[in-house]
Amino acid sequence: MKTRLAASAFALLASGAVAQDLETTIPSSVGAVAPALQNHLNEDIFDGVWNDEALSMRDRALVTFAALMTRHEVNNIESHVALALDAGVTPAEISETITHLAFYTGMGNAIAAAEATAPVFEARGITADDLPPVDPELLPLNEEAEAAREETVQSNYANVSPGVVDTTREILFLDLWLRPDLEPRDRSLVTVAALIAAGQPEQMTFHLNRAMDNGLTQEEAGAMLSHLAFYAGWPRVFSAMPVAKEVFESRAE
Amino acid sequence: MKTRLAASAFALLASGAVAQDLETTIPSSVGAVAPALQNHLNEDIFDGVWNDEALSMRDRALVTFAALMTRHEVNNIESHVALALDAGVTPAEISETITHLAFYTGMGNAIAAAEATAPVFEARGITADDLPPVDPELLPLNEEAEAAREETVQSNYANVSPGVVDTTREILFLDLWLRPDLEPRDRSLVTVAALIAAGQPEQMTFHLNRAMDNGLTQEEAGAMLSHLAFYAGWPRVFSAMPVAKEVFESRAE
Amino acid sequence: MKTRLAASAFALLASGAVAQDLETTIPSSVGAVAPALQNHLNEDIFDGVWNDEALSMRDRALVTFAALMTRHEVNNIESHVALALDAGVTPAEISETITHLAFYTGMGNAIAAAEATAPVFEARGITADDLPPVDPELLPLNEEAEAAREETVQSNYANVSPGVVDTTREILFLDLWLRPDLEPRDRSLVTVAALIAAGQPEQMTFHLNRAMDNGLTQEEAGAMLSHLAFYAGWPRVFSAMPVAKEVFESRAE
Repeated sequence: MKTRLAASAFALLASGAVAQDLETTIPSSVGAVAPALQNHLNEDIFDGVWNDEALSMRDRALVTFAALMTRHEVNNIESHVALALDAGVTPAEISETITHLAFYTGMGNAIAAAEATAPVFEARGITADDLPPVDPELLPLNEEAEAAREETVQSNYANVSPGVVDTTREILFLDLWLRPDLEPRDRSLVTVAALIAAGQPEQMTFHLNRAMDNGLTQEEAGAMLSHLAFYAGWPRVFSAMPVAKEVFESRAE
Repeated sequence: MKTRLAASAFALLASGAVAQDLETTIPSSVGAVAPALQNHLNEDIFDGVWNDEALSMRDRALVTFAALMTRHEVNNIESHVALALDAGVTPAEISETITHLAFYTGMGNAIAAAEATAPVFEARGITADDLPPVDPELLPLNEEAEAAREETVQSNYANVSPGVVDTTREILFLDLWLRPDLEPRDRSLVTVAALIAAGQPEQMTFHLNRAMDNGLTQEEAGAMLSHLAFYAGWPRVFSAMPVAKEVFESRAE
Repeated sequence: MKTRLAASAFALLASGAVAQDLETTIPSSVGAVAPALQNHLNEDIFDGVWNDEALSMRDRALVTFAALMTRHEVNNIESHVALALDAGVTPAEISETITHLAFYTGMGNAIAAAEATAPVFEARGITADDLPPVDPELLPLNEEAEAAREETVQSNYANVSPGVVDTTREILFLDLWLRPDLEPRDRSLVTVAALIAAGQPEQMTFHLNRAMDNGLTQEEAGAMLSHLAFYAGWPRVFSAMPVAKEVFESRAE
């Protein structure tokens, strides 16, 4: 049954541009050095996990992009931006993801991702008009949640680093998270993916809860873990699993 | 005494190709910018730790390759593949290590490692005939150990991510770990090296025990830690030391 | 008030070469792909955190260099070496930082940093005469502190990895840390920055205490955390904050 589902999903996939894009992410040297790896890429990843309907192909493209950016896999980003666009991620969403993850994985990763993205945007005629403005009208703030967050951070860290406390509030939670061109659910999705890829499960509880508050389902979160195992390595995912388990269980209570 | 041992080992080393290979891993700019670093590389690393007989030069080459691949040090891989081959690692073992660590440190690292390895293989006339087939006859499974592993993972995570549970069993433990062209002991060696280099001591207990079940001695494991300090940095190793200590002590009981 | 301080500091900055250097660290593709990110870089980082007087611009340049080297951001290092020199870091200090962090983040990062630094040194006519010798006269050893450190490491790890115990003493604490061309306070500064950027808060307690023993103030440490949030990502800093809090509180008692 499971095999049949996967096969039928692949029929859909194979008819589109994404399947071709996936092939282009592998240089020919892989087959020359590690035929078994080439086979895994084709069977388990491209014809496998990408077709598991528990997470949409569009979400998988976004999650993969977040992981590659976090891991500073500069050479793999260009092909995956093309793939993401073909899978239905908009140019505005790519742009916002880069800006968002600048803060969640460091400016250098964002600068490198922008450089790798620019030729794809240029080739497809994507211009500033297609991208989010510097100062859009912001989404409404959940004032109660923000007050709780600020209270926790203030009481813990006001004396440790007032700079961190201030910039976290002003730049991240009163601005970045309220920008409308990446849905809060997607913002959370790429944040959690980045935390898993970076090996920071200790920062995941807050963001996975926020992701699920923002609409990510438990099935999707579980499928993201399975997807990221291939791109960030099994150990990163196994370190994230106990945190996911705890979050899922605490929300079921 | 210790100095004498090291010196005599170096006589053997200097006569071989590995000593020359080690020199080629340093660009001339190092001496122009940091003469002290150049000196450390020569004295403490090439004439030092590589000659410590507690771990064979062949194992050190494999461990170093695993660390470089995990750290995505793309520019340093080609020279270290040549070094590994000269130190007695076979092309099939390099190929299998890349495929193995694809799962333990992420596909992107494996793809980059394959790209960096391809020119060395080509220059030495290594072809598909020298490499492991996609579907070799697998080693026999230790069914009891696998049943215990599966039971633990199932009971913890079946509801968190069925995809992770399934792929861990099907792709990793019923296939990858049973492929014959990299000894289980070496598979464990590169896995533990990758976990240390990635800063994941929390995943090390299972794999260091498995490595020692597969034949890695305590002395070799301790020497690997000392070797990796140079390639992954002292802090990575100091975070791994308490885990190694606990594993060693639990096995001595 | 705070805004006024920042503005006046920026007047000083803008008159110097550092402001121009900061601009050169961003390729033009950033604006084409993520206008909002370009704006954040200008407003929050270049005109923002770099001008916060809680940490000198020279220290910020050193901390940023340490973070980039740790993260293997090879393409961003050259421009930041030029920036560091313009901000008052000496060539000898750059050289020593590379050698020091070779041990704290791995040889491969140091080799890549040296390669990226060489063209800047060459362009500015910096030669071996400007750099620390291989064997300088060492600073006096704090024998009591060293005996305590050695006792802890020996008693914990002599049986785990004698190689690590020996090299830690001989190479790091009886040599590297005593080299005079990078002040102990600065050596600690780049070490703590590297640990935060690498995601190793578990190794920070010893080194942050040492940094403060060596003269780093609590305000400077807090400002370093705020600075690194931009370069290493918020989650790295939020994982380091509880450790900093604990160290600050334990020293206040």
